[in-house]
Amino acid sequence: MFRYQILIEYVGTNFRGWQVQKKGKTIQGLIQHEISKLLKEKITLIGSGRTDSGVHAIEQSAHFDCMSKIINLDRFLKSINHFLNKEGVAIVRIRKRTKYFHSRFSAKLRIYRYIIINRLSGPVLDKNRAWHIIKKLDLVAMKKGAKKLVGTKDFSTFRASSCRAKSPIKTMKLVKIETYKNKIEIEFRSQSFLQHQVRSMVGCLKYLGENKWSLKKFDKVVKSKKRILCAPPAPPEGLYLKQVIY
Amino acid sequence: MFRYQILIEYVGTNFRGWQVQKKGKTIQGLIQHEISKLLKEKITLIGSGRTDSGVHAIEQSAHFDCMSKIINLDRFLKSINHFLNKEGVAIVRIRKRTKYFHSRFSAKLRIYRYIIINRLSGPVLDKNRAWHIIKKLDLVAMKKGAKKLVGTKDFSTFRASSCRAKSPIKTMKLVKIETYKNKIEIEFRSQSFLQHQVRSMVGCLKYLGENKWSLKKFDKVVKSKKRILCAPPAPPEGLYLKQVIY
Repeated sequence: MFRYQILIEYVGTNFRGWQVQKKGKTIQGLIQHEISKLLKEKITLIGSGRTDSGVHAIEQSAHFDCMSKIINLDRFLKSINHFLNKEGVAIVRIRKRTKYFHSRFSAKLRIYRYIIINRLSGPVLDKNRAWHIIKKLDLVAMKKGAKKLVGTKDFSTFRASSCRAKSPIKTMKLVKIETYKNKIEIEFRSQSFLQHQVRSMVGCLKYLGENKWSLKKFDKVVKSKKRILCAPPAPPEGLYLKQVIY
Repeated sequence: MFRYQILIEYVGTNFRGWQVQKKGKTIQGLIQHEISKLLKEKITLIGSGRTDSGVHAIEQSAHFDCMSKIINLDRFLKSINHFLNKEGVAIVRIRKRTKYFHSRFSAKLRIYRYIIINRLSGPVLDKNRAWHIIKKLDLVAMKKGAKKLVGTKDFSTFRASSCRAKSPIKTMKLVKIETYKNKIEIEFRSQSFLQHQVRSMVGCLKYLGENKWSLKKFDKVVKSKKRILCAPPAPPEGLYLKQVIY
């Protein structure tokens, strides 16, 4: 048995998310199908984690086991991408791993990026790739809020009701807000995230940025551990899984 | 008569370039048509310069004159973008100008960006938005070449035969190469450019990066003033008009 890790870039717009579902096109499903066809054996692809419908990946990580050894990795990439690229998916890298590597359980750090276009007119270069917010956001307030999210805490406020994680306690290593003209980029780093956690945190940061919430209120919401107090989650199209570090 | 300047973002992929043509959809043509409709008078839109079919703009600048004063600029933007956004065009800003402002002749600096994705697999997040080059480029060599392009020179080597500029002598203020993983961004700054100049320069820098040319050969080509010695120009999809400074 051989184990391979792959790094994957994808445009999430036309998929019903990463995870195979009963109905609809998924990234996991598509790649599994194409690799199985190419290797002429049924493989199961295990991702570092799921991404929702509409969420993109700059570098998702996954692994699979197979009986056939892949002799020429570059040629394998070329062949598989021939089918995947037209669907908005690209395998950017493939490498052989030992059985001790697991794309999900070996991950030390996951990095997400959220992009907001903050201006009157809708984005065209970033269409379906960012959250368009018209009202001028207060970045000073948002940066103060970002600091409140860092550290080891109970993140129940930001947890989807369907989340299946054992514990709501996570350690947020970094929440960094950077701006380039009208573009706001928020980076989140943590070993793991709860379901909808990033989008829920971005939704609350937006309330801060709109001065709909004071920093005190924001802090209270974070500490409340009550999902009901959370702002509406940010839409999926602004979210990117940037990198998984092992 | 009132004069207005507009800043425009566009995805060049589905257009036959900026400039109105006898046949085919152009950005100038589309915006002129929509503004004329909205103001109920025929206007002519004058851009800071043309962009070729497939070339994008982060912030193209243009101006037009009209008899009707636009009372609410924000409302005007919203109405016009309602029609333009679905075509991949957005007017990002509008401001009133005096008759002494001219989008083309008043420009002090034009900034272009060229994006290369340098890896085996084709880009999907940057599909139609970058030049995909598989062979690993020698960035040290390219950066040395970039320096040779800076200054006041005769750029005839990089000039399209159809170029109508009075003189091939231009002053290149900056050619800067930056990398983010597999993405290479090259920025060019000059008051004005010859037709196809940026794409021709990028084509030659790529030859350097592939070690197809030595720095000496590159320098000779630059100084030759002979179009015939130029490398094939880079494709339009990697090129962005980033900003026009007045």
